[in-house]
Amino acid sequence: MSVFGIYGSQEAAQVIYLGLHALQHRGQEGAGITCFEADGTCHHHRGLSLVSNVFNQELLSSMGGYVGIGATQYANKAKGGLGNVQPLLFHQRKGDFAIAGEGSIINADGLRLYLENQGCLFQTSTDAELLGNLIKKHNGEDRITNILEALNMMEGGFAFLICTKNRIYAARDKHGIKPLALGRLGDALLVSSETCAFDLIGAEFIRDVEPGEVVSLDQKGIRSNKYSEYQRHKVCAMEYMYIARPDSVIDGCSVHLFRKETGKKLAAECPADADIVVGVPDSGLSAAAGYAEGSGLPLEMGLIKNRYIARTFIQPIQSMRENSVRMKLAAVRSIVEGKRIVLVDDSIVRGTTCLKIVKLLRSAGAKEVHVRIASPVMTHPCYYGVDTSTSEELLCSNRTVEEACKIIGADTLGYVSCKASVEATGGCSELCLACFNGEYPTSLYEYETK
Amino acid sequence: MSVFGIYGSQEAAQVIYLGLHALQHRGQEGAGITCFEADGTCHHHRGLSLVSNVFNQELLSSMGGYVGIGATQYANKAKGGLGNVQPLLFHQRKGDFAIAGEGSIINADGLRLYLENQGCLFQTSTDAELLGNLIKKHNGEDRITNILEALNMMEGGFAFLICTKNRIYAARDKHGIKPLALGRLGDALLVSSETCAFDLIGAEFIRDVEPGEVVSLDQKGIRSNKYSEYQRHKVCAMEYMYIARPDSVIDGCSVHLFRKETGKKLAAECPADADIVVGVPDSGLSAAAGYAEGSGLPLEMGLIKNRYIARTFIQPIQSMRENSVRMKLAAVRSIVEGKRIVLVDDSIVRGTTCLKIVKLLRSAGAKEVHVRIASPVMTHPCYYGVDTSTSEELLCSNRTVEEACKIIGADTLGYVSCKASVEATGGCSELCLACFNGEYPTSLYEYETK
Amino acid sequence: MSVFGIYGSQEAAQVIYLGLHALQHRGQEGAGITCFEADGTCHHHRGLSLVSNVFNQELLSSMGGYVGIGATQYANKAKGGLGNVQPLLFHQRKGDFAIAGEGSIINADGLRLYLENQGCLFQTSTDAELLGNLIKKHNGEDRITNILEALNMMEGGFAFLICTKNRIYAARDKHGIKPLALGRLGDALLVSSETCAFDLIGAEFIRDVEPGEVVSLDQKGIRSNKYSEYQRHKVCAMEYMYIARPDSVIDGCSVHLFRKETGKKLAAECPADADIVVGVPDSGLSAAAGYAEGSGLPLEMGLIKNRYIARTFIQPIQSMRENSVRMKLAAVRSIVEGKRIVLVDDSIVRGTTCLKIVKLLRSAGAKEVHVRIASPVMTHPCYYGVDTSTSEELLCSNRTVEEACKIIGADTLGYVSCKASVEATGGCSELCLACFNGEYPTSLYEYETK
Amino acid sequence: MSVFGIYGSQEAAQVIYLGLHALQHRGQEGAGITCFEADGTCHHHRGLSLVSNVFNQELLSSMGGYVGIGATQYANKAKGGLGNVQPLLFHQRKGDFAIAGEGSIINADGLRLYLENQGCLFQTSTDAELLGNLIKKHNGEDRITNILEALNMMEGGFAFLICTKNRIYAARDKHGIKPLALGRLGDALLVSSETCAFDLIGAEFIRDVEPGEVVSLDQKGIRSNKYSEYQRHKVCAMEYMYIARPDSVIDGCSVHLFRKETGKKLAAECPADADIVVGVPDSGLSAAAGYAEGSGLPLEMGLIKNRYIARTFIQPIQSMRENSVRMKLAAVRSIVEGKRIVLVDDSIVRGTTCLKIVKLLRSAGAKEVHVRIASPVMTHPCYYGVDTSTSEELLCSNRTVEEACKIIGADTLGYVSCKASVEATGGCSELCLACFNGEYPTSLYEYETK
Repeated sequence: MSVFGIYGSQEAAQVIYLGLHALQHRGQEGAGITCFEADGTCHHHRGLSLVSNVFNQELLSSMGGYVGIGATQYANKAKGGLGNVQPLLFHQRKGDFAIAGEGSIINADGLRLYLENQGCLFQTSTDAELLGNLIKKHNGEDRITNILEALNMMEGGFAFLICTKNRIYAARDKHGIKPLALGRLGDALLVSSETCAFDLIGAEFIRDVEPGEVVSLDQKGIRSNKYSEYQRHKVCAMEYMYIARPDSVIDGCSVHLFRKETGKKLAAECPADADIVVGVPDSGLSAAAGYAEGSGLPLEMGLIKNRYIARTFIQPIQSMRENSVRMKLAAVRSIVEGKRIVLVDDSIVRGTTCLKIVKLLRSAGAKEVHVRIASPVMTHPCYYGVDTSTSEELLCSNRTVEEACKIIGADTLGYVSCKASVEATGGCSELCLACFNGEYPTSLYEYETK
Repeated sequence: MSVFGIYGSQEAAQVIYLGLHALQHRGQEGAGITCFEADGTCHHHRGLSLVSNVFNQELLSSMGGYVGIGATQYANKAKGGLGNVQPLLFHQRKGDFAIAGEGSIINADGLRLYLENQGCLFQTSTDAELLGNLIKKHNGEDRITNILEALNMMEGGFAFLICTKNRIYAARDKHGIKPLALGRLGDALLVSSETCAFDLIGAEFIRDVEPGEVVSLDQKGIRSNKYSEYQRHKVCAMEYMYIARPDSVIDGCSVHLFRKETGKKLAAECPADADIVVGVPDSGLSAAAGYAEGSGLPLEMGLIKNRYIARTFIQPIQSMRENSVRMKLAAVRSIVEGKRIVLVDDSIVRGTTCLKIVKLLRSAGAKEVHVRIASPVMTHPCYYGVDTSTSEELLCSNRTVEEACKIIGADTLGYVSCKASVEATGGCSELCLACFNGEYPTSLYEYETK
Repeated sequence: MSVFGIYGSQEAAQVIYLGLHALQHRGQEGAGITCFEADGTCHHHRGLSLVSNVFNQELLSSMGGYVGIGATQYANKAKGGLGNVQPLLFHQRKGDFAIAGEGSIINADGLRLYLENQGCLFQTSTDAELLGNLIKKHNGEDRITNILEALNMMEGGFAFLICTKNRIYAARDKHGIKPLALGRLGDALLVSSETCAFDLIGAEFIRDVEPGEVVSLDQKGIRSNKYSEYQRHKVCAMEYMYIARPDSVIDGCSVHLFRKETGKKLAAECPADADIVVGVPDSGLSAAAGYAEGSGLPLEMGLIKNRYIARTFIQPIQSMRENSVRMKLAAVRSIVEGKRIVLVDDSIVRGTTCLKIVKLLRSAGAKEVHVRIASPVMTHPCYYGVDTSTSEELLCSNRTVEEACKIIGADTLGYVSCKASVEATGGCSELCLACFNGEYPTSLYEYETK
Repeated sequence: MSVFGIYGSQEAAQVIYLGLHALQHRGQEGAGITCFEADGTCHHHRGLSLVSNVFNQELLSSMGGYVGIGATQYANKAKGGLGNVQPLLFHQRKGDFAIAGEGSIINADGLRLYLENQGCLFQTSTDAELLGNLIKKHNGEDRITNILEALNMMEGGFAFLICTKNRIYAARDKHGIKPLALGRLGDALLVSSETCAFDLIGAEFIRDVEPGEVVSLDQKGIRSNKYSEYQRHKVCAMEYMYIARPDSVIDGCSVHLFRKETGKKLAAECPADADIVVGVPDSGLSAAAGYAEGSGLPLEMGLIKNRYIARTFIQPIQSMRENSVRMKLAAVRSIVEGKRIVLVDDSIVRGTTCLKIVKLLRSAGAKEVHVRIASPVMTHPCYYGVDTSTSEELLCSNRTVEEACKIIGADTLGYVSCKASVEATGGCSELCLACFNGEYPTSLYEYETK
């Protein structure tokens, strides 16, 4: 999931479209944009597909601008469907407002019960709907006060944009789990899940939204409010390792440099007696480069990615039934044949894909395959919106690394350590490593006993 | 453009679909499949889109199999439109047959005139229609004799598949300009423009079709005929440099290894005083790896590609108007900032894209940009089906490399030599280098005086 | 707009689809279905298009059944868009429920204000969302009590279906303005805006829902509750005249017979010295038959309707610019040439279409055109959901019939009387004639002073 | 199938689109347009869907005009698919030309063999491709001479339009089996399968193309050539009875008046002791009106047609499995209940639909159903392009009328006589009644012995 907003542009819808295009990797199920024109006219459109399918030029032109927000939606069994695609638009006498958010609220069940008891009726499964109703409940004079009070009731990892006809409010959780960045495009102010969206449109990065901060973007510029005294920089480690685009910078640390540095440390922690280093495209490539640099082994493009996705599901033919990963990846036989390979990937969740890639390399003639993972051993579920699996499904929740190595069919298997991961940020940030070490930065509420 | 065929499988349509999916990079405008069931029933479907959009599971299941061919179509102003998507299906009393081809016939105008004078009426602009009619003209007893005679009238670079209910004939031009490979999947026989399609479906590569050879695939297996005594291996250099997928092997030479080796030679021929090497994804990456290896400079992922294509044309916003390449490529500032960069790409045609990439790197803070091209200076048009531009549009048709360097805004510009390109095949093949040195392997007929 | 529901069928979604198909004439903008399986699993799908485009077999099969409701949406500037397509689905701890409604709530603005003050936040412009929240506010033990209290707060013309996993509640406004009928299909119970949906699926009509009644359909069968002591049968006259399908029966009176009888009375009240009677297809045909019978003039098919709708808007060519009605209707010259014609239509709203039809007939050679309208002179706006125009746009809100006749270019113009319309029901029903005589059956609240 | 052409309009594509829209009832499978601009630029587009889906405003605007032809395609197992949608466009050095045709060539097999022997290779199953090649074979100086000679070789019922950048040639078979009419729109000249297309666009009818005539439409106006001395007016009776739109006039006889007159004669020839007359919409309505007039029985709208077609095939629910006709037709119970009904339809082919309609009426309470058919007993197959069935499938090819009556479940069954059908044209035309009496106006060639 991703959010993007702009205040103060006649091309607001167009810019949001481009921003969401740059953030598409954070959610491919759906996309939406809500825009207010300078006279308060509201435009709202959502759909279940890629950004480029949901919107077209005619639609964007008709949505115009002045201020607006957009979001992409991650496919997710529990919270799917068109009704959950954001932004949500709320109608009120004193003015419509829209909310788009990403992340996950830990105490959502409790808040939902509280609001139901207050008479609320829910039409979606989104946290955005919770936030809207919490703001409504805090029925004070000042919208900003209501927002601060509402946010104080929410525990979790999140980034929320609230958009009225005059203003965008941008909030980040107090642990800093989810990223959120501010930018400028000419006179217009921007907010985005990742900085790569600024680069696409030629905008300038200003600063990250701080943990526990609510920023207002309006004609007075950028104004800051803190809704919590508690403030940490526990950025989700998976953002650096897997989710974010390598050209983004989160809390001062380049995602690509983090990955490359992790690869280097991985080479030091888990060396391998091998001939070449091969990265799994696209997300393992940065770490593979680091591993090669660290180990002195040559980096080779032993795997290439099919640029064309088979969108329609086609039943596999007999000879492919065992290895569906071929539709996405191809091994370059002239590189891998007869070689002892270090295969570097960003993470292993359930291990099924990794097993298929190992097989693919062996069937192309690889002599040995040493799998090296540029993240620590994943053992705990994530409650902050990253769609890893339940504990039972995780390859290593109840297995030793040696057992896991056998399951994926590798010669050896190694993971980078938590310590090395933290060091790879260069001191820019602490990290939320909960899925690796079980140290959740927030209280877990109802999840505690599950 | 690409062709793919299979003889002897109950899943023929399905396999062709997968083959075309692997060959999608050779033509995205349209795709088609013609299949014959064992009882002779013919199925024929074509459309203007990606393979995965033109076909779906239901359609493929209904097409069944036993023998069939397919093709992808390259977008091309002169020969576009649904009518030109192949295979073409021809009806005859003694049995329908289909033709799919790629490449270009040099003496097409002359053959067209000849056939018109013989009473032929054309419904397409394809060479496949020419071939079909030439075969029909040679009205002998034996289909294979007619085919041999027809092919002898055609001059150019091509690969043709002719499919009847009993057999596929696969022909390659006598100069070997276009690639064509034979494979095996269980009991079924395959033919494909590139070997990467065999890898996708888990098939085995048998051998290349030889220049000037017509191969029959049927229940008697693979049988060979030569339609010409003249036989050369002048494979199109652009196949190795740009067109083919890096995991393909053409006439015994791995495309990836060719590119990497070219990069190494480029480093030797055109060194640069720089800090890092950056390849243009995806097609410049192999050569960049070679350049890094050759020069000893570190290879860095300074440019990344947006995986999501904006399919609908969207009008660019003000700030992006000058640099539309941002929709496809992003510079990683943390890598390129303050660096002297060697930018390696596979080729420069008109120079407009290269100019934009140089600008993109500079705007991300690159100190110097030294462009190195892993193909020789392109100065002549291609008449064999590669859609380079007319002479006037080529960056270097009337300019020195120094002038070209200024136009693309680089600090220095260097190209690999023709000699190095030929050496990079490792002796596997001569190369058609006509677009670089004007030495066309065939007579040029009407083009000569144009 | 229309609603349709079924309790107790394994084919619930399928049956609802067919019901909505039969009710498609009551709303072409959008359609939706919400179904609960026997185990409580909920399926919910809505879209902006015809029923046959929004749903397909695969989707319907996946929705299964046991109990469910559906709706079609009328295109309406103020309340359009996907968000307003019904049913709406509400989430609650004690069980999800869905609401679909048609008609219009007169005191919606007041209720909205009341609910907002109670902390409600609205996401749509629908009356269904109002009803859902009113039910939620009446937070008693019994759902049925909450529903009765909620309905008592709503003034207007409406039909609502409320669906839980166990039951459908079907409510009709206490004036009986909107129709709502109960049926039976095998063991399953049905409710529908019109009886024609029962005929399509081979179901049996049981009875109309009574004004002011809430009916429960569940495993105990049909149980009745009254939410109001005030009960009238003021069925919307436009239902009989224009909206409903001629094969439907509303409150005991056949729509076709009403129209034919009205035509007969029109012939008596407004005779014409003419040669033939021509009805405007399809909605004027029943009345034309009655006029012919009443007047003794022959009924002729002087106008035929183009069965194919030009869905894409195509710019008219020069010669058609003045008469776009030709895309829908054609005059049969061999019938109308040289004839004095009585042209019978069901209603005139703004008069623009009528003017075009008169011109069409004259250009096909009609000597005289005497327009006869099978409804009274329309002078007042409708507040109960019929999308007539504002007073200013109505042809006759500020004009005499003579002036109107000139505007539409007819030789004479005549309307049936209110009295005759009421008589045409054969005593089955009183009628809401508010748009003809300004006697609104309900209080008008905020509209009063507008 | 239908054809439409225009010479001399800047809006040529637009006008053809509208013409095809009016002729849509003659073919719903596909549609195509070929246009030449004044400078000879050719535009060609075809698709498999309704005219309004195949074309949109943007496309039509880009096709421009000056001269062009279009066609709609009838769904037909043997000759379906995109490749057979017309016009076909043929490329030649001396100028491209397009052909669109309707009808069927009796000696197509012989001509195909002849052309194959001359070296022709066919890419479609159309008669248009035959005609194009025959013209090409007659390789004289004059195009018109070549056309005349080609047409002389073709036996059957047809209408062909041949379009070059300068001219349209319009040909009608010498028996006059297929209709073809000339019109004028301002300065532009038109040709159309039916006159209803002229009425839609506000054009003027000039005259019918004569049997055996080829008309040239160009800057010299309308010029006539005869390709055959043999000339008859044996218009296909089914055109009057079923195919053509009631507002069209063919060879001077109004289709509607023909049908009504036939209905009158049917009443005289086959009276029924009944209460009301009900026509099957839409094609039986004119005849029903005539039957009512002839018999003195009241005409009632006992059946109404669902305006909305369920485009996606949806599996019928249990209760509807036996009577799928309900999706298209509904019986009006208030009219038919307890009545003895004369059910008038235009024709019976296999009898399956008629059986379902009889059942539908009985289930709505009809006491008796007397089926009256406004065409003679169909006993022979049509070889001229009307898609009736093979002899074995025809209800009455091997049955007496009494036996047929039992099969369709009617109380009585009556057909109009051939003699009455001919009289119903009012002497305007003889008729081809081959499917009723086996008297084929042409030689049958290979069909003779089948």
